[in-house]
Amino acid sequence: MTTSTFSQIGVIGLGTMGRNLALNLADQGVPLVVWERDRELAERARSDLGDRVTWASGPWDLAARLAPPRAVLLMVTAGAAVDSVLGELKPFLGARDVVVDGGNTEAGDTARRQQELEKSGIRLIGLGVSGGEEGARNGPALMAGGAVDAWERVAPQLTAIAARTTDGSACCQRLGAGASGHFVKTVHNGIEYAVMQVLAEAYDLMRNGLGLEVPAIADVFRNWNQGPSAGYLVEIAGDVVATQDPAGGPLLDRVVDRAGQKGTGRWASLAALDFGVPAPTIAEAVFARAVYARRSDRHALAASPPTATTISVDDLHGAVRATTLIAFLQGLDLIAAADRSAGWGVRLPDVARVWRAGCILRAALLDRLAAAYDALPPDASGLSAPDLRDDLAQTLPGLRRAIAGSVTAGFAVPAMTSALGWYDGMTRHRVPADFLQGLRDRFGAHGFERDDQPGTHHADWSGR
Amino acid sequence: MTTSTFSQIGVIGLGTMGRNLALNLADQGVPLVVWERDRELAERARSDLGDRVTWASGPWDLAARLAPPRAVLLMVTAGAAVDSVLGELKPFLGARDVVVDGGNTEAGDTARRQQELEKSGIRLIGLGVSGGEEGARNGPALMAGGAVDAWERVAPQLTAIAARTTDGSACCQRLGAGASGHFVKTVHNGIEYAVMQVLAEAYDLMRNGLGLEVPAIADVFRNWNQGPSAGYLVEIAGDVVATQDPAGGPLLDRVVDRAGQKGTGRWASLAALDFGVPAPTIAEAVFARAVYARRSDRHALAASPPTATTISVDDLHGAVRATTLIAFLQGLDLIAAADRSAGWGVRLPDVARVWRAGCILRAALLDRLAAAYDALPPDASGLSAPDLRDDLAQTLPGLRRAIAGSVTAGFAVPAMTSALGWYDGMTRHRVPADFLQGLRDRFGAHGFERDDQPGTHHADWSGR
Repeated sequence: MTTSTFSQIGVIGLGTMGRNLALNLADQGVPLVVWERDRELAERARSDLGDRVTWASGPWDLAARLAPPRAVLLMVTAGAAVDSVLGELKPFLGARDVVVDGGNTEAGDTARRQQELEKSGIRLIGLGVSGGEEGARNGPALMAGGAVDAWERVAPQLTAIAARTTDGSACCQRLGAGASGHFVKTVHNGIEYAVMQVLAEAYDLMRNGLGLEVPAIADVFRNWNQGPSAGYLVEIAGDVVATQDPAGGPLLDRVVDRAGQKGTGRWASLAALDFGVPAPTIAEAVFARAVYARRSDRHALAASPPTATTISVDDLHGAVRATTLIAFLQGLDLIAAADRSAGWGVRLPDVARVWRAGCILRAALLDRLAAAYDALPPDASGLSAPDLRDDLAQTLPGLRRAIAGSVTAGFAVPAMTSALGWYDGMTRHRVPADFLQGLRDRFGAHGFERDDQPGTHHADWSGR
Repeated sequence: MTTSTFSQIGVIGLGTMGRNLALNLADQGVPLVVWERDRELAERARSDLGDRVTWASGPWDLAARLAPPRAVLLMVTAGAAVDSVLGELKPFLGARDVVVDGGNTEAGDTARRQQELEKSGIRLIGLGVSGGEEGARNGPALMAGGAVDAWERVAPQLTAIAARTTDGSACCQRLGAGASGHFVKTVHNGIEYAVMQVLAEAYDLMRNGLGLEVPAIADVFRNWNQGPSAGYLVEIAGDVVATQDPAGGPLLDRVVDRAGQKGTGRWASLAALDFGVPAPTIAEAVFARAVYARRSDRHALAASPPTATTISVDDLHGAVRATTLIAFLQGLDLIAAADRSAGWGVRLPDVARVWRAGCILRAALLDRLAAAYDALPPDASGLSAPDLRDDLAQTLPGLRRAIAGSVTAGFAVPAMTSALGWYDGMTRHRVPADFLQGLRDRFGAHGFERDDQPGTHHADWSGR
C-alpha cells in the first residue's frame, strides 16, 4: 500500500454502484480494502480494480486488514442483505468503528440499525447516493445522515469523490443526525418521479396533441435546457426522444409502454401520508406508473384517443416549470416535517445545495431554491419566497391553459393537475373544509370549531 | 333472562357506538352480558340499558356468564386497547369461542390477532361497522371477515340489527376470510373521503365561482338527491348547507375551515400504494385535508381569490357523478387487489350490496354497481361494464368542462382532476411510459422491453 493523505476504507459489495464508487475512491488515492461475496461480480471488479486495492477474503479478513477506528462502506442491495452483512461484520467491529450504508435504504431501517449498532458503540452513517452508474464513477451527490464524529471519519474520502458544482463546492454533506441522509434520498427520488412524469406528459402532448414530429420535440427539450428549466432530466429527455432505432424510426416507438418502479417514490408518498404533508404530485406520479403498468387492462378498456389541442409550446414550458418547482416545494416540505418529527437538524438550503450537481435532480433551479430557503425562516413554506412566487406568477398561466387544453382533449396530466391543485389550495384564504366539518359533525358527531367562540361545537344540521 | 330465539352475546365497551349497538341488539331480543371498564361510561349505559342486559364485573365474569361456545363483541377504541382487552379476555376463553372486533381496526392488526388467537382455537371476526351513532342504534352496515363457522355463531344476531334495503335484504355479510371485513371498511372510508371532497369542491364552486346563495345551493343538492346521484352524503349536504346559525347567516360560515381526519382514508391510500393500485382520488382527498389543515400557512400565503366562472350547474352535476363513480371503481379495484394478495375470497358485487343501506356511502349508485359487477368476470375492471361506461359517457363532458373552468378561475378541484386523470389514463391505449423507460434506461440502466423482440434491452440513448 502506498502512502496516502487519506485513511483507508473498506468496501463491501462490488456490483455496478459499488465497483464504480470503489474505482472513483481508488482514483482519488483512497486506500481500499474490498470484498464481494459473489464470485462473478468479484471477478468483474478485479479486472477493473486489479491490485490498486487490497482484496479481503471475507468480512473478518476485511475488518482485520483495516486499522481502527475502521470505516466500511456497504454497497449491497437495500433490505435483508444489509442486515445479513451487518450481522456477519459486527463481531469483528468495535467501538468508534463506522459503517456507511450507501444503498437505497428505507430511512426506518437505517434508524433501527443505528440504534442496534450503537449498543456496541458502532456508528452507522446512512448515505444517499444519487447519479446512477455514471455518477458513482465520476462524481455522485452524497447525502449523509448520522453522528458528526462518525461522519468526520469518512468525510474527506467521500468529499473527494463527490460531484462538484461549477463554483467548485462538493455535493457531499452530512445533512443531519440519524436517518436524515436516507430520508433526503427517498424524497429526492420522489421528486424525480414527479419531474419525470410532467416531462412525460409534455412529451405526450407534443407528440399526440400538437402533432409535433420527434426531431421537433427533441429541439423543444434542448431549447428548454438552455434556460431556467435547464437540468439533467430535461437534457436527457432531448437525447432520449431523438434516439433512433437501428431499424429506423424513433427508438421510443419500439419501447413497451409499461414503466417499472423500484419503490423509493412509493416510500416518499407513504411518508407524505404518514406525516400529513400534502405531496400529491409525488403520489400522482407513483399512481401514474401504476396506471401505465396495467397495460392489458388499458388495451381492453381503450376509448377513443385524445383529440388535437392548440396548447402552445410556451404554455407547456410554463406548465413544466411550474409543476417542477411545485414538486420540489412539496418534497422539501416533507423533509421539513420529517425533520421536525425526528429532530435531525436538517437545513433545507443544505438539501437544495447538495442536489446541485451529481444527482438526477441537478438543475439550474437548485441554486435559486437554495438562495430562497437561505432567506426564509426555518419553518416557512418555500411558497413564501418572493423569487419563487415571481417564477410561479410567470409560469402558472401556462400551466392553467395547458391543463384546460389537456382535459378538454382527453390527455391525462396528473402531475400538472395535482401541482396546480396544491398551489390553488395552499394559497387560498378560505377553503371548503367548513363544509367537510359540517358533514362530519352531521353523520359522526365529530364536532367543529367556530371562528367566533372557543371550544368544540355540535349542531343538529337539520337544514333549518 | 327471558327465553330468546337468539343465543347470547357478550359486549365489551359501551362508548357511543358500543352502547348503541347493545341497545339495538337488546331491542331485537338478543340476550346480552355487558361490561364497560370506565365507570362514567358504564353509568351512562346503565341508564339506557338498565336490567334488559346482564352486567358483568370484568372480563372473567363476562366469560363465566356466557355459555360456550362464547361470542364476545368488542367495541373498544381501535389500536392498543383492543390488544389489551384481548389479553385480559383470552385466559377465560376456549376453543370455538368467537370474538368480534367491531372497531375501526387496521386490517393488518386484525390479521395478526387472528393468527395469534387461532393458536388457542379462538376465532376472531373483524367487523366493519358503518353508519355512525345513528346507524349503530337503528341499523348499521356490517362488513364481516373471518372463518365461516365463527361467523355462523354471530350472524343471526348481527343480521337482526343491520340496516335493510328497500327490498328487505340486510346489509350484513361475511365478505371473506381473514381481515377482509376491516379492509373493506377501510376502503369504504377512503371512498367516503373522495365523495365528500368532490361535494366540497362543488359547494365551493357554486358558492364562490357561480355566486349562488346558500338556499340555492341547498336546493341544488336536494335536487341531485332525487336523481341518479341520490345518496346519504348528497342528502345531508343539502341539510348542512341550509342550516342557519342561531345568530343568523349560514352556520357553515362560522365553522373554522380546518378539517380533521381519523386515519382510515390514510390507510386506504397507503394500501393503494402498497398494492400498486391507482387510487389517486382517495389519496388526493386525504392530501386535500392536509392542505386544509395548514390554515395559518394558507393565511400567510393567500393569493388573490379565484375569479367567477361560468360552469353550469348541470356540468357540475356531471362532474360530481363521474368523480363519485370513479372513486368507487378505484376503491373496488383496491379491494380486488388486496383480495388477490390475501386470498380472502371477496366478491365485489357482495361489497357493493352490503353498502346499499346503513353506511355513509349508501346511494342509488350501489344497486347499479352490484348489478354491473355481477355481470363481469371476477378480475375485470368495473370500467368495462357497459352500464357504467354509458354513465361516464353522459357525465364526463361535464367533468371536463367543470375542470377547465375551475383551473382557469383558480379553484382547486383535486378530486375532480384525479378522477379524470385516472379515467383518461386507464382508457388510453398507448401511454408515455415508453418515454419514462427511456429516461430510466438512460440514467440508471434499468433496461426496457421492446414490442418487437423478447428480453430486456439497453440503449445508449445518446440522441442519434
